[in-house]
Amino acid sequence: MSARSRRPGPTVRVRVTETTDDGERRREDRVATEEPLEIRLAWPGSPASRVWVTMRTPGHDFELAAGYLLHEGLVGPGDLRTVAYCTDEDLSDEEEFNVVTVTLERPPRRDPGHRHVGSSSGSSACGVCGKDSVSDVLDLARGERWAGPAVHADLVRALPERLRPAQAVFERTGGVHAAGLFTASGELLVAREDVGRHNAVDKVTGARLLAGAPVSDACLVVSGRAGFELVQKAVATGTGALAAVGVPSSLSVRLAAESGLALYGWVSGRRCVRYA
Amino acid sequence: MSARSRRPGPTVRVRVTETTDDGERRREDRVATEEPLEIRLAWPGSPASRVWVTMRTPGHDFELAAGYLLHEGLVGPGDLRTVAYCTDEDLSDEEEFNVVTVTLERPPRRDPGHRHVGSSSGSSACGVCGKDSVSDVLDLARGERWAGPAVHADLVRALPERLRPAQAVFERTGGVHAAGLFTASGELLVAREDVGRHNAVDKVTGARLLAGAPVSDACLVVSGRAGFELVQKAVATGTGALAAVGVPSSLSVRLAAESGLALYGWVSGRRCVRYA
Repeated sequence: MSARSRRPGPTVRVRVTETTDDGERRREDRVATEEPLEIRLAWPGSPASRVWVTMRTPGHDFELAAGYLLHEGLVGPGDLRTVAYCTDEDLSDEEEFNVVTVTLERPPRRDPGHRHVGSSSGSSACGVCGKDSVSDVLDLARGERWAGPAVHADLVRALPERLRPAQAVFERTGGVHAAGLFTASGELLVAREDVGRHNAVDKVTGARLLAGAPVSDACLVVSGRAGFELVQKAVATGTGALAAVGVPSSLSVRLAAESGLALYGWVSGRRCVRYA
Repeated sequence: MSARSRRPGPTVRVRVTETTDDGERRREDRVATEEPLEIRLAWPGSPASRVWVTMRTPGHDFELAAGYLLHEGLVGPGDLRTVAYCTDEDLSDEEEFNVVTVTLERPPRRDPGHRHVGSSSGSSACGVCGKDSVSDVLDLARGERWAGPAVHADLVRALPERLRPAQAVFERTGGVHAAGLFTASGELLVAREDVGRHNAVDKVTGARLLAGAPVSDACLVVSGRAGFELVQKAVATGTGALAAVGVPSSLSVRLAAESGLALYGWVSGRRCVRYA
């Protein structure tokens, strides 16, 4: 499908009023675009149906869909037949670019109706707990941990600075997160931005998947905090290390420790803290 | 139900390794607790069933559940009969405090199985779009906009500083978001913290709801960005203004403009920017 003029861009111009000690000033500003994206999944004998809706910054939508599905344990490399925007006749232009259908070669690797994060493992009549959340993720992980060289802590500190040139939307708006996948020698393989931290990581993994490249490497760098959901994604791909500019949570540390993921927080040129 | 020793606290102690230019140092650190919380809803003639699972920082769980249900348009003031931790016999201690059941006096105000954010309004065979997302929220909004005095932009700039003394978990971990509800004269009514920005806002609204106090006031202050989901919550309660330390997104600006919510971003002692 070719790009059209109505396709939304990553930023939008707005009129604002800024107040400082010097008084009020009207000016123009740019904010990051946020629009819903519906991801549909189809496979031989099964028509496309919705599996998820996320608020995201338009751009790299196919990557977002592919990466999300891989992180959720629904697909693996070689499973994807096509990824396309919805082509229903009765769609408005605005809707057309907000629905992505992923068609698989075979049925998904687990029931797409059941999101695992935070769900009970089924062993209890009632209840969810951190232990179940962690074991659910470990069960779904592809079982391939990073076997290449580890990224050195001194190099980890340098990575947020190397991600910065790829943060064009952040530069213009200050309103998006970034994620980047690095080799053990500190080479940036791919970087993506989004209003949602999890979406940025989905896009990074999806970019590798759609390019036929390995989805994991030595270190995934994220511009925000390392909550459970981000650690889950890093574990799902088998990435060697997750380095966050912000801090991890208790459950992030637990999941990283149990999965063998190296987890860094407070990463800056000055320091980094290894939690697991 | 009385508190027990196994009840999780808001922070957890961890062993870390910090790397700086001076080398490696092992020390103790604190991270914010993150655990799943399952919210169940029951009403006369209908047994409790799961409506949502969120990763949250334990504490103020009843408020979180009540505020979430109000923001989603499921309940209003006067609808709640009881809010309690799950008491199934076969629960582990860890699970017991991760399941909250809200029992209503009457059926919920809409189908609890259908989350509205990002969902299609039903008018189209295919597709989601920002316009639908905005109108869905406006349909669900309680229709009571803040009728009291507006908070002045010069006072808005002072509010994050007034929220800070209530950010005890952030002070210890650097890993949680905060939300606080302020009057037009800048008085802090209630503040809450959580690893999830949306949870912090749910807790603030829930605290007011469970106290029998009005859920809206002049200004809700949040420590992060003002994404669509946060603006949706402010619109649902009818709050007068939303002031974020970070920036809003395109859809946040659109929803705020259409709902009459005053939306501020980049709020600090130095300046604030009004987007709608």
